[in-house]
Amino acid sequence: MARLALSPDRLFPPDPTTRSIARRLYDEVRGLPIISPHGHVPAEWLAQDTPFEDPTSLLITPDHYVTRVLHARGVSLADLGVGQQDVSVDQRRKAFRLLCEHWPAYRGTPVKFWFESGLADVFGLDLVPSAETADTLYEAIAELLDTPDFRPRALYRRFGIEFLATTDDPVDDLRHHRALAADPTWDGRVAPSFRPDRYLEPARPDWPDLTAALGEAADVDTGDYAGWVQAMERRRAYFKANGATSTDHSHRDARVEPLPATEAERLYGLALAGRISPDDADTLRRDLMFQMARMASEDGLVMTMHPAVHRNHHTPTFERYGADVGADIPISVEYTRAVQPMLDAFGTDPTFQVVLFTIDETVYSRELAPLAGFYPSVHIGAPWWFIDAPDAMARYRAAVTETAGFSKTSGFIDDTRAYLSIPARHDTARRMDSAFLAGLVADHRLTLDEALDEAYHLVVTYPRKAFRL
Amino acid sequence: MARLALSPDRLFPPDPTTRSIARRLYDEVRGLPIISPHGHVPAEWLAQDTPFEDPTSLLITPDHYVTRVLHARGVSLADLGVGQQDVSVDQRRKAFRLLCEHWPAYRGTPVKFWFESGLADVFGLDLVPSAETADTLYEAIAELLDTPDFRPRALYRRFGIEFLATTDDPVDDLRHHRALAADPTWDGRVAPSFRPDRYLEPARPDWPDLTAALGEAADVDTGDYAGWVQAMERRRAYFKANGATSTDHSHRDARVEPLPATEAERLYGLALAGRISPDDADTLRRDLMFQMARMASEDGLVMTMHPAVHRNHHTPTFERYGADVGADIPISVEYTRAVQPMLDAFGTDPTFQVVLFTIDETVYSRELAPLAGFYPSVHIGAPWWFIDAPDAMARYRAAVTETAGFSKTSGFIDDTRAYLSIPARHDTARRMDSAFLAGLVADHRLTLDEALDEAYHLVVTYPRKAFRL
Amino acid sequence: MARLALSPDRLFPPDPTTRSIARRLYDEVRGLPIISPHGHVPAEWLAQDTPFEDPTSLLITPDHYVTRVLHARGVSLADLGVGQQDVSVDQRRKAFRLLCEHWPAYRGTPVKFWFESGLADVFGLDLVPSAETADTLYEAIAELLDTPDFRPRALYRRFGIEFLATTDDPVDDLRHHRALAADPTWDGRVAPSFRPDRYLEPARPDWPDLTAALGEAADVDTGDYAGWVQAMERRRAYFKANGATSTDHSHRDARVEPLPATEAERLYGLALAGRISPDDADTLRRDLMFQMARMASEDGLVMTMHPAVHRNHHTPTFERYGADVGADIPISVEYTRAVQPMLDAFGTDPTFQVVLFTIDETVYSRELAPLAGFYPSVHIGAPWWFIDAPDAMARYRAAVTETAGFSKTSGFIDDTRAYLSIPARHDTARRMDSAFLAGLVADHRLTLDEALDEAYHLVVTYPRKAFRL
Repeated sequence: MARLALSPDRLFPPDPTTRSIARRLYDEVRGLPIISPHGHVPAEWLAQDTPFEDPTSLLITPDHYVTRVLHARGVSLADLGVGQQDVSVDQRRKAFRLLCEHWPAYRGTPVKFWFESGLADVFGLDLVPSAETADTLYEAIAELLDTPDFRPRALYRRFGIEFLATTDDPVDDLRHHRALAADPTWDGRVAPSFRPDRYLEPARPDWPDLTAALGEAADVDTGDYAGWVQAMERRRAYFKANGATSTDHSHRDARVEPLPATEAERLYGLALAGRISPDDADTLRRDLMFQMARMASEDGLVMTMHPAVHRNHHTPTFERYGADVGADIPISVEYTRAVQPMLDAFGTDPTFQVVLFTIDETVYSRELAPLAGFYPSVHIGAPWWFIDAPDAMARYRAAVTETAGFSKTSGFIDDTRAYLSIPARHDTARRMDSAFLAGLVADHRLTLDEALDEAYHLVVTYPRKAFRL
Repeated sequence: MARLALSPDRLFPPDPTTRSIARRLYDEVRGLPIISPHGHVPAEWLAQDTPFEDPTSLLITPDHYVTRVLHARGVSLADLGVGQQDVSVDQRRKAFRLLCEHWPAYRGTPVKFWFESGLADVFGLDLVPSAETADTLYEAIAELLDTPDFRPRALYRRFGIEFLATTDDPVDDLRHHRALAADPTWDGRVAPSFRPDRYLEPARPDWPDLTAALGEAADVDTGDYAGWVQAMERRRAYFKANGATSTDHSHRDARVEPLPATEAERLYGLALAGRISPDDADTLRRDLMFQMARMASEDGLVMTMHPAVHRNHHTPTFERYGADVGADIPISVEYTRAVQPMLDAFGTDPTFQVVLFTIDETVYSRELAPLAGFYPSVHIGAPWWFIDAPDAMARYRAAVTETAGFSKTSGFIDDTRAYLSIPARHDTARRMDSAFLAGLVADHRLTLDEALDEAYHLVVTYPRKAFRL
Repeated sequence: MARLALSPDRLFPPDPTTRSIARRLYDEVRGLPIISPHGHVPAEWLAQDTPFEDPTSLLITPDHYVTRVLHARGVSLADLGVGQQDVSVDQRRKAFRLLCEHWPAYRGTPVKFWFESGLADVFGLDLVPSAETADTLYEAIAELLDTPDFRPRALYRRFGIEFLATTDDPVDDLRHHRALAADPTWDGRVAPSFRPDRYLEPARPDWPDLTAALGEAADVDTGDYAGWVQAMERRRAYFKANGATSTDHSHRDARVEPLPATEAERLYGLALAGRISPDDADTLRRDLMFQMARMASEDGLVMTMHPAVHRNHHTPTFERYGADVGADIPISVEYTRAVQPMLDAFGTDPTFQVVLFTIDETVYSRELAPLAGFYPSVHIGAPWWFIDAPDAMARYRAAVTETAGFSKTSGFIDDTRAYLSIPARHDTARRMDSAFLAGLVADHRLTLDEALDEAYHLVVTYPRKAFRL
């Protein structure tokens, strides 16, 4: 049975000079607390501190990074527990075995790095996943998950998390965040993020109901446009009062464009009546996004934008398994023209701040770095989703730094629901940023002191600044 | 006269650690048989085993990789024999001299690597091409081409080719493939590929004639849409019976979209009457592509897509020299939305399989890797045409691996008519894949054993799987 | 106070083998004269040889590379002197202090390299900019600027400039160029470039006035289309007679498309009457660009194209500070289809020549290299503006060389008004090209002799060829 042996030098450039500089930089930042300003860990886990159930439901079933690779090799999502009710212990073991049997499929992907780091560093296990080791690993993990050291709060402390943001629906009452805030035994910091996407998509069949629910949560009549606006303002205020520092927005495109008031009202009416066309719905959504930006310029919640993904690309998979199961495929994005009306209005307003994310790498040097290199309000989000991986991280730094420097980048964003992978994900970023900075020292673009300074800021100062922590 | 001295380490990274790992990996794969599942070598060459005529008509005139570089420096295509009848021996010598005189123009291009490898490894010559050496080289090559060792079948064996696919018109009777299959003295494997592009472009002036010819070949009346469909099905069956495992498709865009039957029929009628508009022809072509996908889901022939090239960009060149002379220029491509209807219908069908190629590198990390990282049916084609070169190969692996791993890539595709360059092209890919894997070992993302395993699969397992060999 | 210590090895790859080859190549080219075929230094500076006023108005205020980084950190452009009249000495000192205080913001940007090279190599100063050193640096530079060695002509000689092109309006009388030509004490070469952008944008409110002024300068009635054409021809001839070798064109897109004569005339009439629609203005502009190409095919002035920038992205900044203050943001560009009509007509005409620039890196391997790899008239411009920086330069060479080689690239273009940064900018390019070539030698794609040859051509032969010097 092959043994895992994780090198202390992993992800560092092989050239000895650069590697030794990378080590020096990494040593400065490896132990710093984790700031996680955007992600999908449920606050409930920490509020209730419930033990995790079993290896499969923790590490495989909900993690579409893991399941899609197996699906791409012909494994049925059902066999991984996706979209299943009442998954038996046998089925869970079988799912874990499938992962281990297909382990070579993860070669070259960051999932391998995260998972192996988790095995070694979180669970203290050193077996390479394989058909042979699957059951041993499953049992060892299952046993550990039953111990107090592996409950959510214990892991939060062990991981050195300093700040963790969740992603929440505007009508959420944030009861788990409030419970945490009221809990004298809890000294972590878990903040909600305001994610109103559904309420900005007026062509959704359930949009009138969503709008009504929004109004109810805000105690405002959302029967007209002004009501919708006021309801959003109130819910944002509620989130802010409960610790939120940012809002998150993910639509097909990045456009933000105000409408004349009467036209906005007209389209709002059509949408409420369930009669809005898809094109008009896009137009109205872009206006509602402008309202979001306007609110951000008043309440100071940082906007984050994650556009341009074709969600649920495969209809049969969506119908059988639902959303977020690995069947979302990126499309190209345009930012320069799309956000011009927003930045024209608020781009130099000191209260307004926005972090722009992309999976379309072409906008890094062409659009995002120039935007962040001029507008004080614009920060460039870290590589996101499919490109949250070492080589892509290296491309990101190489593409944006020459125009925007380091200080206009967001710091690392893990964007994950895979709680146990958080330390490995941040570790990847710290290693890759150390490697990138080491390259600049090795070819004399930076002194070592300058690089040490930036390495620290990338982990501490810049995420705090970008997300107003 | 400068001498060629081809280093055994060429294309390996200069860092000594990485280079030594690359050597180790390359040693494992350098001698493995060549699988060439997509290319343009005429089956006739092998069926008839006719000696090659002369250096120029073998190495220069038909190879647009070679001629376009000279053309870009001001050399007339006519002087290279392109589009000429009855090229005299003098003209051939002169063309060869032009190549040698302009040899520095190839610096940094893969043509230099291929040509020098050919000189050294195929012909055993060690002169650097130049005005001074041109005639000597010409004569030496001409002399060798007259010997039995340089006839197509001898080279096939010497190159270690295990499988070679040609590209063929649907109405082709495949007589050369049949002759090879019937030849007891021939133990190679040369399979046709079904390339129906012309029959899917209803705006072509010759489309009604092509459609009639298709019907004749299939013994079906193609006077209506159903006839066209049936004719295609029959010809595909004929190709499959004669060893084909794939079909190839190259159109301006990658869109595949079914039409309602009556609309398809209406447009088909317009096209047959020569009265279809360019836009309607695109619409009909996308529907016909959907029919191709549907057939693939039934007969299991692997689809390969090579879209988004502006063919014959320079009209005067096309009029004087015809197609495929180096005047094709790529355009951007969109895949996520374009193939959605096809993958929605067949993406998880185990009989259906498709390999997506691109010259537009932006789709690697944004679209192709996510598609292949979810759909079991999708493979990512190797760097194609302009980007079939070392640096582009490195970018390809770096762009797709983190999302799709190695096993969803096609293996190397030489896509060439330049028969003598086949070993050098595969050697380039083996070297670059060894270099890429060596980088992953050097920074501890893979163990050496894992890399050795992948190096082998990239040459043997994955091309067989992607092309169902 | 930290001291600057500029390594002789800066920008060279850290691997010892590659670095030593890079040093060898760089040694061959570091001292060669500077050819600057496209830039924005005013001819007046050299004609009148007036001393520079002070450090801020020379190094900060007019340089949007410098000011935008500070603006992105929240510094007001007004505090940097931008758009201000009568800036006091105090304000200048304060602006210089702002730069020094924010010096860490430039880490990883080429501005740091250029500025530090300027401090060390031009002014002989070795203090790292900081709040602590700001005043000392300001005074030291101010003092030097008062000496004869720092006047424009002395610097021209000291920088080793052999050719410097300016950028000029078609109606400019070129008095400064003429004065230089007539000055027996001046032995440099400063040529104008013809930049007619404004006259090709018929939707501009001032277009009728511009057209009248053009007619006046050319002594032609521009009341009809033919008059505009003739006026342009005459002004081009005037520029050519005064040393111009190129024209420069920067519009939102790269399209060049002729109109039927009557349609051109009709749109021209609408434009003169101030009644042309934005879409028609684009259509007319693309036709006028075709006229420019046609003229180029007759007078042999090299066209350079710099398309696809959203100018003045932030209206309030434009209204307060004017154009060219760092608020221009790139957009994506399409070249293959856009320039097809132009290349169809003139692409193989030996008199016609064009250099295509981009900030959108996606077109390098997909469009520009294939175009330059076929058309003898097409050259690929060096990385421009935001991507005129080391990592982007490396990406450029890696993206274009495999298709187009070296000889179809333009040589380095500094494109700057920051006179004192010219040596550092050319030095950056020489270092990066040496590094790129060293990589090709290190992995045995080129011999050292081949690389030495190309290193020389990149600095001397290719810019001369691309710009017909």
